[in-house]
Amino acid sequence: MLEERALAALREAGADEPSATAATRAMMHASRMGVDSHGVRLTSFYAEALRSGQVNGRPDFKVRRTASASAVLDADRGLGHAAAYAGMELACQIAKESGVGAVGVAHSTHYGAAGAYALAGAEAGFIALSTSNADSLVTLHGGAKRFHGTNPIAAAAPVAGARPWLLDMATSSIPYNRILLFRSLQRELPAEVTADIAGEPTRDPHLAEVLTPLGGQDFGFKGAGLAGLVTILSAILTGSTPDHLVPPMNPEEGEPKPHDIGHFCLAIDPERFVGRAGYDALMQQYLTGLRESPGRSGAEILAPGDREWRTMEQRNRDGIPVDPDTARFLKLV
Amino acid sequence: MLEERALAALREAGADEPSATAATRAMMHASRMGVDSHGVRLTSFYAEALRSGQVNGRPDFKVRRTASASAVLDADRGLGHAAAYAGMELACQIAKESGVGAVGVAHSTHYGAAGAYALAGAEAGFIALSTSNADSLVTLHGGAKRFHGTNPIAAAAPVAGARPWLLDMATSSIPYNRILLFRSLQRELPAEVTADIAGEPTRDPHLAEVLTPLGGQDFGFKGAGLAGLVTILSAILTGSTPDHLVPPMNPEEGEPKPHDIGHFCLAIDPERFVGRAGYDALMQQYLTGLRESPGRSGAEILAPGDREWRTMEQRNRDGIPVDPDTARFLKLV
Repeated sequence: MLEERALAALREAGADEPSATAATRAMMHASRMGVDSHGVRLTSFYAEALRSGQVNGRPDFKVRRTASASAVLDADRGLGHAAAYAGMELACQIAKESGVGAVGVAHSTHYGAAGAYALAGAEAGFIALSTSNADSLVTLHGGAKRFHGTNPIAAAAPVAGARPWLLDMATSSIPYNRILLFRSLQRELPAEVTADIAGEPTRDPHLAEVLTPLGGQDFGFKGAGLAGLVTILSAILTGSTPDHLVPPMNPEEGEPKPHDIGHFCLAIDPERFVGRAGYDALMQQYLTGLRESPGRSGAEILAPGDREWRTMEQRNRDGIPVDPDTARFLKLV
Repeated sequence: MLEERALAALREAGADEPSATAATRAMMHASRMGVDSHGVRLTSFYAEALRSGQVNGRPDFKVRRTASASAVLDADRGLGHAAAYAGMELACQIAKESGVGAVGVAHSTHYGAAGAYALAGAEAGFIALSTSNADSLVTLHGGAKRFHGTNPIAAAAPVAGARPWLLDMATSSIPYNRILLFRSLQRELPAEVTADIAGEPTRDPHLAEVLTPLGGQDFGFKGAGLAGLVTILSAILTGSTPDHLVPPMNPEEGEPKPHDIGHFCLAIDPERFVGRAGYDALMQQYLTGLRESPGRSGAEILAPGDREWRTMEQRNRDGIPVDPDTARFLKLV
């Protein structure tokens, strides 16, 4: 029902069938796995961007295979999801032939949860990476103004007989909408994750204007460096727009301008390295060691993705909770 | 002089000419750029590992080109530097033909500063990544015991008419030898970067036994996830040993066992994506925007590598400072 309503809302807003289907698939991935910030609540956000013309509802993708292991997909400013799934699928096909495949997705728009695309690659049998740049919300290390986007890095790796290992992380400490959430909860933010309008660190969600890079006051140069790497791979390599020059999606003020960002998809075939059997055995040995590693004060140790897979099982059983605004928008209430 | 002495010390310890030359090149890279933890002070560490047989001084590299974009280099437990430079050089050759090149370096040993290899790739015109796993020194997020290595991620990207953009970061907040340094300085460590023998956070360098992942108490799952990605790419993909099973280099107790870790080299040719001219222009635009971005309280904003390039200029002029132990070992005093 949720899926159908999201699909219908995107169609109504002007998305063609492949765009609406891919965006819904990516949002449902996030909603199922408990990443509600990138789940079906984004439907209204995408619908608005489609209606304003910031996002092209009927994109004409153009793929150029530029060498035996590389390709560029021009997303024609469509919803990023269809382009990112297509880019990852192509990267996997290329990796199957060439050992590794890299696809740059140019001139795209917001693609939701990066993990959806890395996961698609891992489910096809490849070690997969997905990155995307975004409009600026995060300061540089020591910076007073927003510069990079939250620029996610997602990576996934197949695990024989089990769900993939799955890392999906913003290069800021927290996502922007956590500021909004903590405002409504009247709750103090964690230390060293946000700054006020002048770039000074603040834990007050009402003063917080920008995010700060992963690593906080002392080590934020690492988060900022990773964000830069994502910008280079996603935007600069593909000829799209660097974060600080990207017109924001759904701007609070002024005329909305066409969005233009890039994604990067990498797939690696273990078959062409240690071989499938060796890879499977070592991955098993690594994950067993990890899960058996003792936790502080008896805490359970989880591999990246473990928590999300548990949430998925629980939500498959009990259903996906939907926030009131989204429920109204999707006509579920 | 410094370079010759390091070279001589490695030769004396049993390294063949290619091994000694590559290790010295990598150490001099780090010493010139101010990364003294991975500079010539490592000479005695490598010499000891060569003498104990943990590292093979006369390795026989075997290269298998497994597909048009992939290769595996078996480093035969030689010093990691020669293998990592060779792996990156091959990745660049492959990328020139195929758009992207990935080389897994199997059965290698400690390779020093990851940035040395990424830089070599960028100087050849490619966006380059270098990662390596290592013996375990870093807890998992919430973990009570060491599990991952400090598992560096280095990335470099060419900049037309200027030194490359260069990121070289451990996936822990600090390197292990900073604990040792702070012990000798009797100085308190930064918060949330180390833990005691039970995994409890401590700032006392005398109690600190292990490192904790980048991101600290709240966001260490990101640093631990990145460390895991490095293990997967470097060790698992290449059929080498995962961090928690790697015998430590120069163990304080017991018989030294042969070291066995892996590296991963990736090179991407911008020519096969946006094209060289487009890449150069966008990279310029990005870096100009970054360097002009206002700093908090007037702080200067630097791109990754900027500080290191400055240090290099200064050290090229004034010489490289060498700590007393290393000066004695290299017979400089």
